[in-house]
Amino acid sequence: MRIDIITVVPNLLRGPFDHSILKRAEQKGLAKVEVHDLRPYGIGNQKSIDDYAFGGGAGMVMMIEPIANCIETLRSQRTYDEVIYMTPDGETFCQPVANALSLKENLIILCGHYKGVDERVRQHFITKEISIGDYVLSGGELAAAVVADAVIRLIPGVLNDETSALTDSFQDGLLAPPVYTRPAEYHGMKVPEVLLSGHAAKIENWRFEESVRRTRQRRPDLMGSSAGNEGGKID
Amino acid sequence: MRIDIITVVPNLLRGPFDHSILKRAEQKGLAKVEVHDLRPYGIGNQKSIDDYAFGGGAGMVMMIEPIANCIETLRSQRTYDEVIYMTPDGETFCQPVANALSLKENLIILCGHYKGVDERVRQHFITKEISIGDYVLSGGELAAAVVADAVIRLIPGVLNDETSALTDSFQDGLLAPPVYTRPAEYHGMKVPEVLLSGHAAKIENWRFEESVRRTRQRRPDLMGSSAGNEGGKID
Repeated sequence: MRIDIITVVPNLLRGPFDHSILKRAEQKGLAKVEVHDLRPYGIGNQKSIDDYAFGGGAGMVMMIEPIANCIETLRSQRTYDEVIYMTPDGETFCQPVANALSLKENLIILCGHYKGVDERVRQHFITKEISIGDYVLSGGELAAAVVADAVIRLIPGVLNDETSALTDSFQDGLLAPPVYTRPAEYHGMKVPEVLLSGHAAKIENWRFEESVRRTRQRRPDLMGSSAGNEGGKID
Repeated sequence: MRIDIITVVPNLLRGPFDHSILKRAEQKGLAKVEVHDLRPYGIGNQKSIDDYAFGGGAGMVMMIEPIANCIETLRSQRTYDEVIYMTPDGETFCQPVANALSLKENLIILCGHYKGVDERVRQHFITKEISIGDYVLSGGELAAAVVADAVIRLIPGVLNDETSALTDSFQDGLLAPPVYTRPAEYHGMKVPEVLLSGHAAKIENWRFEESVRRTRQRRPDLMGSSAGNEGGKID
């Protein structure tokens, strides 16, 4: 998989993609993230990339021409499955969207900054608009990094242990159960007995019960009919 | 405001906090983000910070002792309003939570990594658990950066124009209207006439109508009773 990210602040994305699993995925040849500075695609001597909003008001708007230049340059090199724009009014990102994107070959992610991009960019170039949540960020860069991370870790071979991603929260409609490690007792706080029992079936059952309990308590909205059908196991 | 972030991959957060508005907020003395490497607080010669999960299974768990050492060191230096843990099963982050956090003085944000932290950390040290959305990341670092960005940009004086944040999506329960900038025509795609009219009241009305239209179309769930009360303006 290849992800091309277009941004006006490329340095902001250096850390996230030079470390952790994204770096490892690249070293293993499983995924490649290229960060493209929009500035060289800017207009005129100043390489301008933004301008005042028509109609007035606070905040600058990213112009269509530099973005068009950049996207068309990338498209001349390969075919893209999606050209994604990160925006608070896009489709809310969630695990099923991450799963679907992890099967794609080539993605462009355009990061908005300032007041956002000229609406015509969205109408003409963008095939998918994604929001990572109902809050506003100073730009789309961190949102793009979040999407890239969530997607790339799902590619088989990226995580050290493939079962690791399958037991995560959301993959089975349940939140993950509590986890514990050494020491078995810390200032009087003990690890639940069952986890020290060595009894695999009991442990598995406890984890399932705790997942259901936690999901009911914190996110009853996640519990669809499948979880309901399994309710007999724990009640 | 001061935010202390505790992480096992501090380099991942270099980019986000060395650029853009977070850097500017720090230069203006309005906010300070300190990234703390958990490693020096680790146990033994190896400075271990994680271990296998009790009960078996894939993925490592972050131990309580290094985290306790780090949090207690920070707490000995100042009082914290919240000790936040970034986790997919936390309270879903949204603009009202960002608004509330922007009024705090000192925050600790603990980033989970691997399979997460020992449950006793959550029971004993954490005062608030936040999820940035229903998806799983390889660690809490990007989530912590998202929260820090969303919160810090709300502090008065951080954005160049204070009205800028007030007209964002979500602040008034509506998505932002489309924005346009030069050129007025691009390959036959024109900017809406009204934005070129110079008629301030008409422009304001158009933007409100477009905000409502977009919110109805994309996020009807956001439209509470207040938006309904204003419906008469546009129907």
